[in-house]
Amino acid sequence: MYRIALDVMGGDFAPQVTLEGATFALKSFPELHLVLVGPQRVIAPFLTYPRVEGIFAEEVVYMDESPGEALKKKRGASIFVGLDLLKKGYAQAFVSAGNSGAVVAGSMFILGRLTGVRRPAIATLLPTLREPMVLIDAGANVDSKPYDLYQFAVMANLFLETIWGRPQPKIALLSIGEEIGKGNFLVKETHKLLSASSLNYYGNIEGRDIYRGEVDIVVCDGFIGNICLKLSEGLAETILEMLKKEVKESFLYLLGMSLAKGALKAFKKKTDWREYGGAPLLGVKGNVIISHGKSDALAIKNALRQALHFAKLDLANQLEKAIQQHHIEEEEVAD
Amino acid sequence: MYRIALDVMGGDFAPQVTLEGATFALKSFPELHLVLVGPQRVIAPFLTYPRVEGIFAEEVVYMDESPGEALKKKRGASIFVGLDLLKKGYAQAFVSAGNSGAVVAGSMFILGRLTGVRRPAIATLLPTLREPMVLIDAGANVDSKPYDLYQFAVMANLFLETIWGRPQPKIALLSIGEEIGKGNFLVKETHKLLSASSLNYYGNIEGRDIYRGEVDIVVCDGFIGNICLKLSEGLAETILEMLKKEVKESFLYLLGMSLAKGALKAFKKKTDWREYGGAPLLGVKGNVIISHGKSDALAIKNALRQALHFAKLDLANQLEKAIQQHHIEEEEVAD
Repeated sequence: MYRIALDVMGGDFAPQVTLEGATFALKSFPELHLVLVGPQRVIAPFLTYPRVEGIFAEEVVYMDESPGEALKKKRGASIFVGLDLLKKGYAQAFVSAGNSGAVVAGSMFILGRLTGVRRPAIATLLPTLREPMVLIDAGANVDSKPYDLYQFAVMANLFLETIWGRPQPKIALLSIGEEIGKGNFLVKETHKLLSASSLNYYGNIEGRDIYRGEVDIVVCDGFIGNICLKLSEGLAETILEMLKKEVKESFLYLLGMSLAKGALKAFKKKTDWREYGGAPLLGVKGNVIISHGKSDALAIKNALRQALHFAKLDLANQLEKAIQQHHIEEEEVAD
Repeated sequence: MYRIALDVMGGDFAPQVTLEGATFALKSFPELHLVLVGPQRVIAPFLTYPRVEGIFAEEVVYMDESPGEALKKKRGASIFVGLDLLKKGYAQAFVSAGNSGAVVAGSMFILGRLTGVRRPAIATLLPTLREPMVLIDAGANVDSKPYDLYQFAVMANLFLETIWGRPQPKIALLSIGEEIGKGNFLVKETHKLLSASSLNYYGNIEGRDIYRGEVDIVVCDGFIGNICLKLSEGLAETILEMLKKEVKESFLYLLGMSLAKGALKAFKKKTDWREYGGAPLLGVKGNVIISHGKSDALAIKNALRQALHFAKLDLANQLEKAIQQHHIEEEEVAD
């Protein structure tokens, strides 16, 4: 049995969908023991379920709140109370679809970094033409240094190998040309570190090739990673919206699109981030899974599945070992 | 009459499509006097056309060649010979769909920067749900400083006002949150400069909102701009490819998609970068238009139209004045 804490108030559609997702997960995963974290009035009705307990947290960090402010003024909010449970060792993993900045800030402050880790990073799974791949960092940091990116690669490597069973994943650096030496200072310096490592380093990958699925891990600074992620979401929506507009202009188009609806549906399922179960925050002392703010019950259930894997395999601990194994002396690294 | 130089050998489908595009442009723009730059055997048949002359350049810079190497070893290539014509004042604008790195490097070396400009930048037009918008810098620079980004905004502003007749365009900084103070060091410092300026500054824009068309100009470092651009192209292709795959699996889907074909076509036309006529390199001493490597005849024709506008309005000269008007003393700027 593994004890997983769930931030019941996290996400745009909480607490309804978080609780629904929790119910699904309890049915599907017999090893799951759930610790619901949230206001008493919200979680009380669920406390009679088997394998469920509750920890009351009356405050909520809203999606647009400043993480720093929240951490100062709302220490009793579900995000921070959940992280406290990890810290105390009472829960073995924590899932939140809430304010991701607050989850990152709270994790840094309450759990702290794994020994040797300079900065934790968010590892997001993205659909491609082949297998899903990991984009790291998806937005935990800005202004990263070469050694940070190198550590992101080490952590994502272990994550894909251990949790997704993909041995020796191909690791690429996001850049503006495939040739070695193309890129900014950060990419050029990180390239040296990855080349000299034992990782399966592929070289640079361009923006155009991310979704082709030729590599398993794309490494970049969190500023760029977050922009890429949101740009992709926005562009996909825009393309579908533009298509819809055109289709509305003729009955024939409408008919055609309704006939092709199944294809659109299958396509949507294949590219559905909800299937992947949230993005782990790698590098902190504890197993933290950040779920998308727009998570529905399916996404929450899958995030809980991933949290369960993290707990079972004691991933945070394994990450610490990997970081130590891949340690490079400071003086050999540009800053 | 305006004399525009065209790199006949530039682009993946040169010289056929460049010459075809040139022919279209000559028909459509009576003020156009074309200077074809390329190998004698290629351009000789066109020299009997009215309003056409040729300058022979026997060498070609290939698409994957290192710009620095090319500049050293192939000074007689069409890109550099075309830029020489601008430098001498023989042509008033230059269009190339060739190796864009070589066009940038050649422009810097042969033409030089406008007085006061620290770095030239590529301004690319992108489709949105509303009007097309400008992304600057699309890849001329990496590791830009705050004052560089500020100057990119000044130049793109004049470009949209003058060439596209859009008064007081809304200018945004690409970042990872809309709130002031969200972003990396570069964004935070550039924010101060834009806030204090007379430009119509909107604040931050997130990756997700670029294609909504709420702003007219999106400013970012060329490393990020280039990644965004290529990511967008790649993702759009991937989405259509995935859809096709699904559609092939059922006759009904196929039928549906063929009925909806007109909608897809209209959609494609609306998002067609070829309509916009290439991306100007702003900030060098001369009117340089970089066309997409995959340009077809339509794209070349539209790039020539834009070059004509640049020549007529003497845009390079106007940019120099704008940069001087918006000058900020060095000591007030973070680096």
